Amino acid sequence: MNKTKSPWIRTVTLPKPTLQDNTADSDRLISALKSKLQTNAVHLDLDLLKKLPDLLRKWEFNVRCILFKDRHGWLLSGIAAADDSRRFVGLAVDLGTTKVVLRLVDLSDGRLLGESGVNNPQLSVGPDILVRIHFAETSGGLKRLNALIIAGLNQTVQDLCRSCRLEPQDIYTIIVAGNTAMTHLFMGLDPRWIIREPYIPVTNKPGIVKAAELGIQVNAGARVFIFPNVGSYFGGDLIAGIFFAGLHKRSDPGILVDVGTNAEVVVGNENWLIACAGAAGPALEGGMTEMGMLAGPGVVDRIAIHPDTHEFDLHTIGGESPKGICGSGIIDLAAALFLSEMIDIRGKFVPAVCGKHLKQIDGLAHLVVVPADKSATGSDLTLSQVDLDSLIRSKAAMYTILETITTTVGITLEDLSSFYVGGTFGSFIDPRAAIAIGMLPDISLDRYKPLGNSSLGGAALALTSADFLKEIDEIRDRITYLELNVNQEFMNRFSAAKFLPHTNALLFPSVKKRG
Amino acid sequence: MNKTKSPWIRTVTLPKPTLQDNTADSDRLISALKSKLQTNAVHLDLDLLKKLPDLLRKWEFNVRCILFKDRHGWLLSGIAAADDSRRFVGLAVDLGTTKVVLRLVDLSDGRLLGESGVNNPQLSVGPDILVRIHFAETSGGLKRLNALIIAGLNQTVQDLCRSCRLEPQDIYTIIVAGNTAMTHLFMGLDPRWIIREPYIPVTNKPGIVKAAELGIQVNAGARVFIFPNVGSYFGGDLIAGIFFAGLHKRSDPGILVDVGTNAEVVVGNENWLIACAGAAGPALEGGMTEMGMLAGPGVVDRIAIHPDTHEFDLHTIGGESPKGICGSGIIDLAAALFLSEMIDIRGKFVPAVCGKHLKQIDGLAHLVVVPADKSATGSDLTLSQVDLDSLIRSKAAMYTILETITTTVGITLEDLSSFYVGGTFGSFIDPRAAIAIGMLPDISLDRYKPLGNSSLGGAALALTSADFLKEIDEIRDRITYLELNVNQEFMNRFSAAKFLPHTNALLFPSVKKRG
Repeated sequence: MNKTKSPWIRTVTLPKPTLQDNTADSDRLISALKSKLQTNAVHLDLDLLKKLPDLLRKWEFNVRCILFKDRHGWLLSGIAAADDSRRFVGLAVDLGTTKVVLRLVDLSDGRLLGESGVNNPQLSVGPDILVRIHFAETSGGLKRLNALIIAGLNQTVQDLCRSCRLEPQDIYTIIVAGNTAMTHLFMGLDPRWIIREPYIPVTNKPGIVKAAELGIQVNAGARVFIFPNVGSYFGGDLIAGIFFAGLHKRSDPGILVDVGTNAEVVVGNENWLIACAGAAGPALEGGMTEMGMLAGPGVVDRIAIHPDTHEFDLHTIGGESPKGICGSGIIDLAAALFLSEMIDIRGKFVPAVCGKHLKQIDGLAHLVVVPADKSATGSDLTLSQVDLDSLIRSKAAMYTILETITTTVGITLEDLSSFYVGGTFGSFIDPRAAIAIGMLPDISLDRYKPLGNSSLGGAALALTSADFLKEIDEIRDRITYLELNVNQEFMNRFSAAKFLPHTNALLFPSVKKRG
Repeated sequence: MNKTKSPWIRTVTLPKPTLQDNTADSDRLISALKSKLQTNAVHLDLDLLKKLPDLLRKWEFNVRCILFKDRHGWLLSGIAAADDSRRFVGLAVDLGTTKVVLRLVDLSDGRLLGESGVNNPQLSVGPDILVRIHFAETSGGLKRLNALIIAGLNQTVQDLCRSCRLEPQDIYTIIVAGNTAMTHLFMGLDPRWIIREPYIPVTNKPGIVKAAELGIQVNAGARVFIFPNVGSYFGGDLIAGIFFAGLHKRSDPGILVDVGTNAEVVVGNENWLIACAGAAGPALEGGMTEMGMLAGPGVVDRIAIHPDTHEFDLHTIGGESPKGICGSGIIDLAAALFLSEMIDIRGKFVPAVCGKHLKQIDGLAHLVVVPADKSATGSDLTLSQVDLDSLIRSKAAMYTILETITTTVGITLEDLSSFYVGGTFGSFIDPRAAIAIGMLPDISLDRYKPLGNSSLGGAALALTSADFLKEIDEIRDRITYLELNVNQEFMNRFSAAKFLPHTNALLFPSVKKRG
């Protein structure tokens, strides 16, 4: 986080009231802020109004103001003595279906104060968002889901604050980015119509709500900004990603890919933004392979294969004994298998090369990646031909989506001067491996930019930007959503992409060289 | 109340969602309203958002909208089916120190639905606003005063609604006009600094607050607009009066006088407004004379005296036996006494003319207005020389204030083409009597316009006007408050006005003629 001067904190020294200047307390404060902020609208809540006369006099009319901005003016969220050394804190929230990640930021200088991630407490209802939406339709279901996420958030805020020696009371601004369904459940809005044709959210622009109205236990004056969405399938988390990557401010076109069960893709620059989403297949998340799992200690995330001995060189998170493999590990593994010719261009095991690594289980070829005596589970960690086929389909889908969206806007993948990869998974992908299997295009490696948690990054960035709302509204309004038609052309592209790296090897010159 | 088309109700038919037009429910509604209202800002609350998807589909996307407007855009306070026949109701409140008067208005056509006045429940703490302000400074005092007025208001709303076959839930908009101190107590704001030099209110522009935040039990989406004030001594009730009289829209200058314990006076036109206030003396409210009381059944409000017999011809409110006299009755009485020469130009009883009507009680001359056998109290109703002296001072103060303010702005009383008399008392004054004693200037009678409860009138008028907020802000900002200096010039004017009708009889030609 940059140590930029915050737009949200202003210290004002008010002229003291006299018989000649007997403006009311709040109007005196508002008038000073209006002139300082060059605005004609500053609002303050009744709660603050009630405390104002005592505090102004106690502080001798020197006031530190914590502000926020909505679409039509400024809000005064809180005040303190000019020499008060307490921190005024902003909270960025990535409201994921699986994980909720919180980041505390000092509103006065944008400094990171703490971060914490917890499982989304709604997982107890169902890991899948569809299951939750159906649960929301049962009696009391929506209330329950809403209560789970709000209570979980309050608990995490409390824990995180304690570990940072802060109080929830110190939080004056909250910015939340989540997908459309999670946003609805967070606000207590009925998600029923999101999943039914023609897929209508309750709101595209939730805007700014009082934290207290949402049941969030922070400062009484705190406001929550919730990222807008484009529709049911393109949520605020992705708009936060665009905002974080700065895709909307580039002169030449760039691309942002959020890789997960769905691949969400946005291509654009300062003039236009085209988005689409498609099922990239769960293989990329490590969900469907036998040994696949989400990244964590003991999970294999990097693999190299010795070109002569075909011995595996594994790297696990935290250096612990391997217990499974995550998405980026699988891509590494597939790339290494292909480059060492243990699988062919169709992704099929080559028994002659695989040799002792190959094993038949229930009549199906399995590659033993970690033998039982070296694994943390006590069993072989294996990759089956079915796993591989699934991975090939996923990577082909991803490439096809990338090809389709760029073709639609009349550019080539080579025209993309920056390639942002977002999502927790995206940030761990080794672009070389992804290129080797033809999942990502064969462009210069320095164009690839991992974003990490871009949804959280976008929410935190908004906490330090005075004009974030205008900028985010502009992003949202500029996005054209491209409905992917799985027509003959798409299928042709998909079929061509189902080879390693691709039927047209000319598209992947660097892989050829290395191969 | 005029049957004007209301600006607050709009019925919209939304295009039904399709795959091609999959805007979210709220954005669909907001977009239709934006185009209908020609605005770029329509806000709706989270509560309404939660109900929206179900209701829109139940009503097949035909929606009747109840709107309100704040300084920066429109608010959607509530929705109903397009064919719903329930009334949407606005509530105007005159928040008087002594009396609180409520009026219900149909928001769709401005029609009066009901009206009710009750004593201000804060009277239990003290009849005088100063006593209440001091009470507010004691522990829990402010909370108690606030709770009294809010609970009283809720009860009166409930009773009034029941008598009109309405529900408090039907009330979507509330407009409140009160003096600065009452406004503070109503909002729970500390009034302490209003009465201490340099006399600073907490707020001059309370603006719009959610009814629920104030504890008012009406529709959950309802908003309350509270009239702004100019300062501690010129409150929202008077701004409501100006708004009601239309003083700020006149091309030629007019005057508005609110007569009570204080005389509040505004002179102005479409370009300027000058206000001042001064103690006119409680005699004018009937408070300090021995037989004086507030208007009510059995109270004398009109008196004529037979020129020859000097018999009194009394009119009482409701035609009941007389039990006292109200402010307008006292003015009538004094005028009749003067015109029949029972008092002289100094306001002293002329024993030779008063004859049997005069009585000495404790060495002080008393005029028996109603003998014991004809009064409802069983005692004589009398007017003492002290009462008369007090009345003379009050009327002199009033005339002096009128003379001073017009002189200050460089016009004469004769230049005033309209003379609005507001306040409950003002509406009952017979201008002829007030002119006869020299309290009001001797201008053509048709220029006198009684306004009745102008504070309530202004609040109710705002309920039917789309641009009320802008208009009221403009009134408030245009007012120049004139501090009355009781200097030698003022005292000279006051001394000259202490005669009946005035030292300079040329100022009152019509009185001369009749006399």
